Amino acid sequence: METERIWTAALVVIGDEILSGRTQDKNIAQLASWLNVQGIRLAEVRVVPDREDAIVEAVNQLRARNDYLFTTGGIGPTHDDITVDSIAAALGVGVVHHPDAVAVLEHYYATRGGITPARLRMARVPEGATLIENRVSGAPGIRVGNIFIMAGVPHITAGMLGSLTGTLEGGRPVVSGTVGCWVAESEVADLLRATEKAHEGVSIGSYPFFREGRTGANFVVRSPDAALVERCLEDLRAALAAAGHEVVAGGI
Amino acid sequence: METERIWTAALVVIGDEILSGRTQDKNIAQLASWLNVQGIRLAEVRVVPDREDAIVEAVNQLRARNDYLFTTGGIGPTHDDITVDSIAAALGVGVVHHPDAVAVLEHYYATRGGITPARLRMARVPEGATLIENRVSGAPGIRVGNIFIMAGVPHITAGMLGSLTGTLEGGRPVVSGTVGCWVAESEVADLLRATEKAHEGVSIGSYPFFREGRTGANFVVRSPDAALVERCLEDLRAALAAAGHEVVAGGI
Repeated sequence: METERIWTAALVVIGDEILSGRTQDKNIAQLASWLNVQGIRLAEVRVVPDREDAIVEAVNQLRARNDYLFTTGGIGPTHDDITVDSIAAALGVGVVHHPDAVAVLEHYYATRGGITPARLRMARVPEGATLIENRVSGAPGIRVGNIFIMAGVPHITAGMLGSLTGTLEGGRPVVSGTVGCWVAESEVADLLRATEKAHEGVSIGSYPFFREGRTGANFVVRSPDAALVERCLEDLRAALAAAGHEVVAGGI
Repeated sequence: METERIWTAALVVIGDEILSGRTQDKNIAQLASWLNVQGIRLAEVRVVPDREDAIVEAVNQLRARNDYLFTTGGIGPTHDDITVDSIAAALGVGVVHHPDAVAVLEHYYATRGGITPARLRMARVPEGATLIENRVSGAPGIRVGNIFIMAGVPHITAGMLGSLTGTLEGGRPVVSGTVGCWVAESEVADLLRATEKAHEGVSIGSYPFFREGRTGANFVVRSPDAALVERCLEDLRAALAAAGHEVVAGGI
Protein backbone atom coordinates (compact mmCIF):
# COMPACT_ATOMS: atom_id res chain seq x y z
CA MET A 1 0.00 0.00 0.00
CA GLU A 2 1.31 3.41 -0.92
CA THR A 3 1.42 5.94 1.85
CA GLU A 4 -0.33 9.15 0.95
CA ARG A 5 1.75 12.31 1.20
CA ILE A 6 0.15 14.62 3.75
CA TRP A 7 0.82 18.33 3.24
CA THR A 8 0.83 20.40 6.39
CA ALA A 9 0.78 24.06 7.30
CA ALA A 10 1.21 25.91 10.56
CA LEU A 11 -0.06 29.33 11.59
CA VAL A 12 1.56 31.89 13.86
CA VAL A 13 -0.95 34.49 15.03
CA ILE A 14 1.01 37.59 16.02
CA GLY A 15 -0.76 39.98 18.31
CA ASP A 16 -1.05 41.32 21.82
CA GLU A 17 -4.69 42.09 21.03
CA ILE A 18 -5.50 38.36 20.83
CA LEU A 19 -3.57 37.52 24.00
CA SER A 20 -5.20 40.36 25.91
CA GLY A 21 -8.68 39.10 25.01
CA ARG A 22 -9.50 42.39 23.30
CA THR A 23 -9.93 40.76 19.90
CA GLN A 24 -11.55 37.41 19.13
CA ASP A 25 -9.33 35.63 16.59
CA LYS A 26 -11.04 34.67 13.37
CA ASN A 27 -8.01 33.81 11.27
CA ILE A 28 -7.47 30.31 12.69
CA ALA A 29 -10.86 29.04 11.52
CA GLN A 30 -10.66 30.99 8.27
CA LEU A 31 -7.22 29.65 7.34
CA ALA A 32 -8.14 26.11 8.42
CA SER A 33 -11.17 26.04 6.14
CA TRP A 34 -9.24 27.50 3.21
CA LEU A 35 -6.35 25.04 3.66
CA ASN A 36 -8.76 22.08 3.67
CA VAL A 37 -9.88 23.00 0.17
CA GLN A 38 -6.24 23.23 -0.96
CA GLY A 39 -5.59 19.69 0.34
CA ILE A 40 -3.33 21.01 3.10
CA ARG A 41 -3.83 20.22 6.77
CA LEU A 42 -3.50 22.89 9.45
CA ALA A 43 -1.23 20.98 11.81
CA GLU A 44 -0.56 23.49 14.58
CA VAL A 45 -1.15 27.08 15.61
CA ARG A 46 0.67 29.40 17.97
CA VAL A 47 -0.43 32.77 19.25
CA VAL A 48 2.55 34.91 20.23
CA PRO A 49 2.93 38.47 21.53
CA ASP A 50 4.35 41.41 19.55
CA ARG A 51 7.90 40.54 20.63
CA GLU A 52 10.71 39.62 18.26
CA ASP A 53 12.15 36.71 20.25
CA ALA A 54 8.73 35.05 20.55
CA ILE A 55 8.05 35.47 16.82
CA VAL A 56 11.49 34.18 15.83
CA GLU A 57 11.16 31.07 18.00
CA ALA A 58 7.72 30.17 16.68
CA VAL A 59 8.56 30.88 13.05
CA ASN A 60 11.79 28.90 13.09
CA GLN A 61 10.28 25.87 14.83
CA LEU A 62 7.20 25.70 12.68
CA ARG A 63 8.61 26.51 9.24
CA ALA A 64 11.11 23.67 9.64
CA ARG A 65 8.53 20.99 10.30
CA ASN A 66 5.67 22.02 8.02
CA ASP A 67 5.37 22.46 4.26
CA TYR A 68 3.96 25.94 4.69
CA LEU A 69 3.92 28.53 7.43
CA PHE A 70 1.41 31.36 7.60
CA THR A 71 1.52 34.37 9.87
CA THR A 72 -1.27 36.85 10.56
CA GLY A 73 -0.95 40.29 12.09
CA GLY A 74 1.65 42.96 12.65
CA ILE A 75 2.22 44.22 9.09
CA GLY A 76 0.70 47.68 9.41
CA PRO A 77 2.44 51.07 9.53
CA THR A 78 2.75 51.59 13.29
CA HIS A 79 5.49 50.96 15.87
CA ASP A 80 3.82 47.76 17.14
CA ASP A 81 4.01 46.17 13.66
CA ILE A 82 7.22 44.15 13.89
CA THR A 83 6.38 41.03 11.89
CA VAL A 84 8.55 41.77 8.83
CA ASP A 85 11.62 42.62 10.90
CA SER A 86 11.12 39.58 13.12
CA ILE A 87 10.76 37.16 10.21
CA ALA A 88 13.82 38.66 8.51
CA ALA A 89 15.67 38.09 11.80
CA ALA A 90 14.41 34.49 11.92
CA LEU A 91 15.73 33.93 8.40
CA GLY A 92 18.96 35.84 8.99
CA VAL A 93 18.34 38.19 6.06
CA GLY A 94 17.99 41.94 5.76
CA VAL A 95 14.89 44.04 5.17
CA VAL A 96 14.43 45.94 1.90
CA HIS A 97 11.74 48.07 0.29
CA HIS A 98 10.13 45.96 -2.44
CA PRO A 99 9.82 48.19 -5.52
CA ASP A 100 6.46 46.71 -6.58
CA ALA A 101 5.09 47.22 -3.08
CA VAL A 102 6.29 50.85 -3.16
CA ALA A 103 4.45 51.30 -6.47
CA VAL A 104 1.27 49.68 -5.10
CA LEU A 105 1.31 51.91 -2.02
CA GLU A 106 2.06 55.09 -4.01
CA HIS A 107 -0.90 54.32 -6.24
CA TYR A 108 -3.19 53.37 -3.33
CA TYR A 109 -2.39 56.49 -1.29
CA ALA A 110 -2.37 58.90 -4.27
CA THR A 111 -6.05 59.62 -3.58
CA ARG A 112 -5.73 59.16 0.19
CA GLY A 113 -3.41 61.94 1.31
CA GLY A 114 -0.24 60.75 -0.39
CA ILE A 115 2.61 58.46 0.56
CA THR A 116 4.45 59.08 3.85
CA PRO A 117 7.41 57.41 5.57
CA ALA A 118 5.01 55.52 7.88
CA ARG A 119 3.04 54.23 4.89
CA LEU A 120 6.24 53.29 3.09
CA ARG A 121 7.03 51.00 6.02
CA MET A 122 4.40 48.66 4.57
CA ALA A 123 6.58 48.14 1.48
CA ARG A 124 9.35 46.63 3.61
CA VAL A 125 9.94 42.88 3.08
CA PRO A 126 12.57 40.31 4.06
CA GLU A 127 15.21 40.09 1.31
CA GLY A 128 14.22 37.64 -1.41
CA ALA A 129 10.47 37.99 -0.81
CA THR A 130 7.69 38.22 -3.39
CA LEU A 131 4.31 39.88 -2.91
CA ILE A 132 0.82 38.48 -2.30
CA GLU A 133 -1.90 40.57 -3.87
CA ASN A 134 -4.11 42.50 -1.47
CA ARG A 135 -7.48 42.82 -3.18
CA VAL A 136 -9.07 44.72 -0.31
CA SER A 137 -6.74 47.52 0.81
CA GLY A 138 -3.28 48.85 -0.01
CA ALA A 139 -0.43 46.95 1.62
CA PRO A 140 0.31 43.57 0.01
CA GLY A 141 1.02 40.29 1.76
CA ILE A 142 4.49 38.79 1.52
CA ARG A 143 5.85 35.38 0.57
CA VAL A 144 9.41 34.44 1.52
CA GLY A 145 10.47 30.81 1.17
CA ASN A 146 7.65 28.71 2.59
CA ILE A 147 6.39 31.58 4.76
CA PHE A 148 3.24 33.54 3.91
CA ILE A 149 2.89 36.81 5.80
CA MET A 150 -0.73 37.93 5.95
CA ALA A 151 -2.74 40.76 7.48
CA GLY A 152 -4.35 40.61 10.91
CA VAL A 153 -7.71 42.01 9.80
CA PRO A 154 -9.70 38.91 8.77
CA HIS A 155 -11.36 40.27 5.62
CA ILE A 156 -8.01 41.51 4.29
CA THR A 157 -6.49 38.09 4.97
CA ALA A 158 -9.50 36.54 3.19
CA GLY A 159 -8.64 38.56 0.10
CA MET A 160 -4.98 37.51 0.26
CA LEU A 161 -6.01 33.85 0.59
CA GLY A 162 -8.26 34.37 -2.42
CA SER A 163 -5.30 35.41 -4.53
CA LEU A 164 -3.33 32.34 -3.33
CA THR A 165 -6.15 29.87 -4.08
CA GLY A 166 -4.96 27.04 -6.27
CA THR A 167 -1.32 28.11 -6.24
CA LEU A 168 0.00 25.90 -3.40
CA GLU A 169 0.72 22.24 -3.91
CA GLY A 170 -1.37 19.97 -1.70
CA GLY A 171 -2.80 16.48 -1.51
CA ARG A 172 -6.35 15.27 -1.59
CA PRO A 173 -8.63 17.55 0.41
CA VAL A 174 -9.98 16.08 3.62
CA VAL A 175 -13.66 15.27 3.22
CA SER A 176 -15.94 15.29 6.22
CA GLY A 177 -19.48 14.21 6.93
CA THR A 178 -21.62 14.57 10.02
CA VAL A 179 -24.22 12.47 11.77
CA GLY A 180 -26.22 14.18 14.50
CA CYS A 181 -27.83 12.18 17.26
CA TRP A 182 -30.00 13.02 20.27
CA VAL A 183 -27.85 11.05 22.65
CA ALA A 184 -25.30 11.70 25.39
CA GLU A 185 -21.94 10.96 23.78
CA SER A 186 -21.00 8.91 26.84
CA GLU A 187 -23.75 6.42 25.93
CA VAL A 188 -22.17 5.62 22.57
CA ALA A 189 -18.46 5.91 23.32
CA ASP A 190 -17.82 2.20 22.66
CA LEU A 191 -19.87 2.26 19.46
CA LEU A 192 -17.87 5.24 18.15
CA ARG A 193 -14.54 3.66 18.97
CA ALA A 194 -15.55 0.39 17.26
CA THR A 195 -16.85 2.20 14.17
CA GLU A 196 -13.66 4.21 13.81
CA LYS A 197 -11.57 1.06 14.22
CA ALA A 198 -13.59 -0.77 11.56
CA HIS A 199 -12.81 1.91 8.94
CA GLU A 200 -9.06 2.36 8.79
CA GLY A 201 -8.11 5.81 7.57
CA VAL A 202 -11.04 7.75 9.05
CA SER A 203 -11.13 9.75 12.23
CA ILE A 204 -14.39 10.29 14.09
CA GLY A 205 -14.74 13.35 16.29
CA SER A 206 -17.52 13.66 18.85
CA TYR A 207 -18.95 17.13 19.62
CA PRO A 208 -21.60 17.16 22.34
CA PHE A 209 -24.09 19.96 22.97
CA PHE A 210 -27.12 20.78 25.09
CA ARG A 211 -29.95 22.47 23.24
CA GLU A 212 -33.70 22.94 23.68
CA GLY A 213 -33.44 21.07 26.95
CA ARG A 214 -31.98 17.98 25.26
CA THR A 215 -28.56 16.36 25.12
CA GLY A 216 -27.12 15.60 21.71
CA ALA A 217 -23.88 15.20 19.82
CA ASN A 218 -22.55 15.60 16.30
CA PHE A 219 -20.20 12.90 15.11
CA VAL A 220 -17.85 14.09 12.38
CA VAL A 221 -16.16 11.54 10.11
CA ARG A 222 -13.02 12.78 8.30
CA SER A 223 -10.72 11.30 5.67
CA PRO A 224 -9.22 12.27 2.32
CA ASP A 225 -11.08 9.25 0.89
CA ALA A 226 -14.64 10.40 0.14
CA ALA A 227 -15.97 6.88 -0.49
CA LEU A 228 -14.57 5.73 2.84
CA VAL A 229 -16.23 8.65 4.63
CA GLU A 230 -19.56 7.73 3.00
CA ARG A 231 -19.29 4.05 4.01
CA CYS A 232 -18.32 4.97 7.56
CA LEU A 233 -21.21 7.45 7.85
CA GLU A 234 -23.67 4.78 6.69
CA ASP A 235 -22.38 2.25 9.20
CA LEU A 236 -22.41 4.84 11.97
CA ARG A 237 -26.00 5.87 11.23
CA ALA A 238 -27.06 2.22 11.14
CA ALA A 239 -25.27 1.36 14.39
CA LEU A 240 -26.76 4.35 16.22
CA ALA A 241 -30.27 3.58 14.99
CA ALA A 242 -29.87 -0.11 15.89
CA ALA A 243 -28.96 0.97 19.41
CA GLY A 244 -32.26 2.85 19.58
CA HIS A 245 -31.00 6.43 19.17
CA GLU A 246 -32.63 9.22 17.19
CA VAL A 247 -30.32 9.95 14.24
CA VAL A 248 -30.30 13.14 12.14
CA ALA A 249 -28.36 12.89 8.86
CA GLY A 250 -26.13 15.90 8.22
CA GLY A 251 -25.85 16.85 11.87
CA ILE A 252 -27.93 18.84 14.30
CA MET B 1 13.49 51.03 41.04
CA GLU B 2 11.89 47.71 41.96
CA THR B 3 11.03 45.44 39.10
CA GLU B 4 7.44 44.29 39.19
CA ARG B 5 6.89 40.54 39.19
CA ILE B 6 4.86 39.59 36.09
CA TRP B 7 2.77 36.43 36.39
CA THR B 8 2.23 34.56 33.15
CA ALA B 9 0.02 31.77 31.89
CA ALA B 10 -0.03 29.77 28.68
CA LEU B 11 -2.92 27.97 27.03
CA VAL B 12 -2.86 24.75 25.02
CA VAL B 13 -6.05 24.33 22.99
CA ILE B 14 -6.44 20.63 22.24
CA GLY B 15 -8.68 19.78 19.35
CA ASP B 16 -8.87 18.62 15.78
CA GLU B 17 -12.16 20.52 15.54
CA ILE B 18 -10.34 23.85 15.88
CA LEU B 19 -7.58 22.90 13.41
CA SER B 20 -10.13 21.66 10.87
CA GLY B 21 -12.00 24.96 10.97
CA ARG B 22 -15.20 23.22 12.09
CA THR B 23 -15.29 25.04 15.41
CA GLN B 24 -14.44 28.67 16.07
CA ASP B 25 -12.34 28.80 19.23
CA LYS B 26 -13.76 30.98 21.99
CA ASN B 27 -11.58 29.85 24.88
CA ILE B 28 -8.54 31.97 23.99
CA ALA B 29 -10.42 35.26 24.37
CA GLN B 30 -12.39 33.98 27.36
CA LEU B 31 -9.32 32.82 29.26
CA ALA B 32 -7.35 35.96 28.34
CA SER B 33 -10.04 38.23 29.77
CA TRP B 34 -10.38 36.16 32.92
CA LEU B 35 -6.61 36.07 33.47
CA ASN B 36 -6.37 39.86 33.13
CA VAL B 37 -8.66 40.25 36.12
CA GLN B 38 -6.53 37.79 38.12
CA GLY B 39 -3.42 39.89 37.41
CA ILE B 40 -1.96 37.16 35.19
CA ARG B 41 -0.84 37.73 31.61
CA LEU B 42 -1.67 35.24 28.85
CA ALA B 43 1.80 34.95 27.35
CA GLU B 44 1.33 32.36 24.60
CA VAL B 45 -1.18 29.95 23.11
CA ARG B 46 -0.80 26.78 21.09
CA VAL B 47 -3.46 24.85 19.25
CA VAL B 48 -2.50 21.20 18.85
CA PRO B 49 -4.24 18.16 17.36
CA ASP B 50 -5.67 15.22 19.33
CA ARG B 51 -2.29 13.46 19.31
CA GLU B 52 -0.30 12.54 22.40
CA ASP B 53 3.15 13.57 21.14
CA ALA B 54 1.88 17.01 20.15
CA ILE B 55 0.16 17.53 23.50
CA VAL B 56 3.19 16.33 25.46
CA GLU B 57 5.56 18.66 23.59
CA ALA B 58 3.37 21.72 24.08
CA VAL B 59 2.57 21.00 27.72
CA ASN B 60 6.17 20.37 28.70
CA GLN B 61 7.53 23.45 26.93
CA LEU B 62 4.90 25.81 28.23
CA ARG B 63 4.49 24.62 31.81
CA ALA B 64 8.22 25.07 32.36
CA ARG B 65 8.32 28.70 31.33
CA ASN B 66 5.03 30.03 32.68
CA ASP B 67 3.57 30.27 36.16
CA TYR B 68 0.39 28.55 35.05
CA LEU B 69 -0.64 26.36 32.13
CA PHE B 70 -4.24 25.88 31.06
CA THR B 71 -5.55 23.33 28.59
CA THR B 72 -8.99 23.23 26.99
CA GLY B 73 -10.62 20.29 25.26
CA GLY B 74 -10.37 16.53 25.14
CA ILE B 75 -11.70 15.57 28.58
CA GLY B 76 -14.98 13.95 27.52
CA PRO B 77 -15.93 10.27 27.54
CA THR B 78 -15.08 9.30 23.95
CA HIS B 79 -12.06 7.73 22.24
CA ASP B 80 -10.83 11.10 20.92
CA ASP B 81 -10.55 12.50 24.46
CA ILE B 82 -6.89 11.89 25.26
CA THR B 83 -5.94 14.96 27.27
CA VAL B 84 -5.67 13.29 30.70
CA ASP B 85 -3.51 10.43 29.41
CA SER B 86 -1.30 12.82 27.45
CA ILE B 87 -0.72 15.15 30.40
CA ALA B 88 0.04 12.19 32.66
CA ALA B 89 2.57 11.07 30.04
CA ALA B 90 4.06 14.59 29.94
CA LEU B 91 4.47 14.49 33.73
CA GLY B 92 5.67 10.89 33.80
CA VAL B 93 2.93 9.81 36.22
CA GLY B 94 0.12 7.25 36.06
CA VAL B 95 -3.60 7.79 35.62
CA VAL B 96 -6.00 6.98 38.45
CA HIS B 97 -9.72 7.32 39.11
CA HIS B 98 -10.18 10.23 41.53
CA PRO B 99 -12.65 9.05 44.21
CA ASP B 100 -14.34 12.47 44.50
CA ALA B 101 -14.75 12.62 40.73
CA VAL B 102 -16.30 9.15 40.76
CA ALA B 103 -18.75 10.33 43.42
CA VAL B 104 -19.60 13.50 41.46
CA LEU B 105 -20.25 11.50 38.29
CA GLU B 106 -22.30 8.83 40.06
CA HIS B 107 -24.47 11.56 41.54
CA TYR B 108 -24.74 13.47 38.25
CA TYR B 109 -25.70 10.42 36.20
CA ALA B 110 -28.02 8.90 38.84
CA THR B 111 -30.94 10.70 37.16
CA ARG B 112 -29.44 10.49 33.65
CA GLY B 113 -29.33 6.77 32.91
CA GLY B 114 -26.71 5.74 35.48
CA ILE B 115 -22.95 5.49 35.49
CA THR B 116 -21.20 3.48 32.74
CA PRO B 117 -17.54 2.65 32.01
CA ALA B 118 -17.43 5.41 29.36
CA ARG B 119 -18.77 7.96 31.85
CA LEU B 120 -16.33 6.74 34.50
CA ARG B 121 -13.51 7.67 32.11
CA MET B 122 -14.23 11.27 33.05
CA ALA B 123 -13.12 10.53 36.64
CA ARG B 124 -9.62 9.64 35.45
CA VAL B 125 -6.89 12.10 36.46
CA PRO B 126 -3.08 12.21 36.46
CA GLU B 127 -1.77 10.92 39.80
CA GLY B 128 -1.56 13.66 42.40
CA ALA B 129 -4.30 15.79 40.83
CA THR B 130 -7.08 17.70 42.55
CA LEU B 131 -10.46 18.63 41.07
CA ILE B 132 -11.86 21.90 39.73
CA GLU B 133 -15.58 22.29 40.34
CA ASN B 134 -17.80 22.05 37.27
CA ARG B 135 -20.86 24.19 38.01
CA VAL B 136 -22.49 23.51 34.66
CA SER B 137 -22.38 19.77 33.92
CA GLY B 138 -20.98 16.59 35.49
CA ALA B 139 -17.31 15.98 34.83
CA PRO B 140 -14.99 18.21 36.89
CA GLY B 141 -11.87 20.00 35.68
CA ILE B 142 -8.48 18.90 36.96
CA ARG B 143 -5.53 20.64 38.56
CA VAL B 144 -2.14 18.94 38.66
CA GLY B 145 0.92 20.98 39.63
CA ASN B 146 0.65 24.27 37.75
CA ILE B 147 -1.57 22.72 35.05
CA PHE B 148 -5.31 23.41 34.87
CA ILE B 149 -7.22 21.00 32.63
CA MET B 150 -10.50 22.52 31.44
CA ALA B 151 -13.38 21.56 29.18
CA GLY B 152 -13.55 22.40 25.48
CA VAL B 153 -17.15 23.65 25.55
CA PRO B 154 -16.80 27.38 26.33
CA HIS B 155 -19.68 27.77 28.80
CA ILE B 156 -18.44 24.77 30.82
CA THR B 157 -14.95 26.28 30.89
CA ALA B 158 -16.53 29.58 31.98
CA GLY B 159 -18.05 27.80 34.98
CA MET B 160 -14.72 26.19 35.86
CA LEU B 161 -12.96 29.57 35.64
CA GLY B 162 -15.67 30.93 37.90
CA SER B 163 -14.79 28.43 40.59
CA LEU B 164 -11.07 29.33 40.26
CA THR B 165 -11.65 33.09 40.49
CA GLY B 166 -9.51 34.65 43.19
CA THR B 167 -7.61 31.45 43.98
CA LEU B 168 -4.50 31.96 41.81
CA GLU B 169 -1.71 34.26 42.85
CA GLY B 170 -1.15 37.09 40.40
CA GLY B 171 0.21 40.61 40.20
CA ARG B 172 -1.53 43.87 39.50
CA PRO B 173 -4.15 43.47 36.76
CA VAL B 174 -3.29 45.15 33.48
CA VAL B 175 -5.46 48.22 33.01
CA SER B 176 -6.31 49.41 29.53
CA GLY B 177 -7.91 52.48 28.07
CA THR B 178 -8.88 53.30 24.52
CA VAL B 179 -8.89 56.41 22.38
CA GLY B 180 -10.74 56.18 19.09
CA CYS B 181 -9.87 58.48 16.22
CA TRP B 182 -11.17 59.00 12.70
CA VAL B 183 -7.74 58.81 11.14
CA ALA B 184 -5.69 56.37 9.08
CA GLU B 185 -3.21 54.89 11.57
CA SER B 186 -0.42 55.50 9.07
CA GLU B 187 -0.97 59.26 9.48
CA VAL B 188 -0.19 59.13 13.20
CA ALA B 189 2.46 56.42 13.39
CA ASP B 190 5.17 58.84 14.56
CA LEU B 191 2.86 60.46 17.11
CA LEU B 192 2.00 57.03 18.58
CA ARG B 193 5.60 55.96 18.79
CA ALA B 194 6.59 59.22 20.51
CA THR B 195 3.69 59.02 22.99
CA GLU B 196 4.57 55.45 23.94
CA LYS B 197 8.21 56.40 24.39
CA ALA B 198 7.27 59.36 26.62
CA HIS B 199 5.41 57.08 29.06
CA GLU B 200 7.74 54.29 30.12
CA GLY B 201 5.83 51.20 31.16
CA VAL B 202 2.86 51.54 28.82
CA SER B 203 2.30 49.79 25.53
CA ILE B 204 0.11 51.36 22.87
CA GLY B 205 -1.61 49.08 20.36
CA SER B 206 -3.12 50.43 17.16
CA TYR B 207 -6.22 48.70 15.72
CA PRO B 208 -7.42 50.17 12.43
CA PHE B 209 -10.86 49.65 10.93
CA PHE B 210 -13.02 50.82 8.04
CA ARG B 211 -16.60 51.60 8.94
CA GLU B 212 -19.49 53.63 7.50
CA GLY B 213 -17.21 54.55 4.63
CA ARG B 214 -14.59 56.08 6.93
CA THR B 215 -11.14 55.06 8.07
CA GLY B 216 -10.47 55.00 11.80
CA ALA B 217 -8.39 53.35 14.47
CA ASN B 218 -8.61 52.53 18.14
CA PHE B 219 -5.46 53.12 20.14
CA VAL B 220 -5.28 50.96 23.26
CA VAL B 221 -2.99 51.97 26.12
CA ARG B 222 -2.05 49.15 28.54
CA SER B 223 -0.11 49.01 31.80
CA PRO B 224 -0.56 47.60 35.31
CA ASP B 225 -0.26 51.23 36.52
CA ALA B 226 -3.73 52.78 36.21
CA ALA B 227 -2.52 56.34 36.83
CA LEU B 228 0.09 55.95 34.11
CA VAL B 229 -2.55 54.70 31.67
CA GLU B 230 -4.72 57.73 32.47
CA ARG B 231 -1.86 60.21 31.94
CA CYS B 232 -0.85 58.54 28.69
CA LEU B 233 -4.46 58.56 27.42
CA GLU B 234 -4.74 62.28 28.18
CA ASP B 235 -1.51 63.08 26.36
CA LEU B 236 -2.53 60.91 23.42
CA ARG B 237 -5.96 62.57 23.11
CA ALA B 238 -4.33 66.00 23.29
CA ALA B 239 -1.67 65.15 20.71
CA LEU B 240 -4.21 63.71 18.27
CA ALA B 241 -6.50 66.73 18.67
CA ALA B 242 -3.58 69.15 18.26
CA ALA B 243 -2.74 67.38 14.98
CA GLY B 244 -6.28 68.15 13.81
CA HIS B 245 -7.83 64.68 14.14
CA GLU B 246 -11.32 63.86 15.38
CA VAL B 247 -10.92 62.07 18.71
CA VAL B 248 -13.54 59.89 20.42
CA ALA B 249 -12.86 59.12 24.09
CA GLY B 250 -13.40 55.47 24.99
CA GLY B 251 -12.88 54.21 21.48
CA ILE B 252 -15.06 53.84 18.42
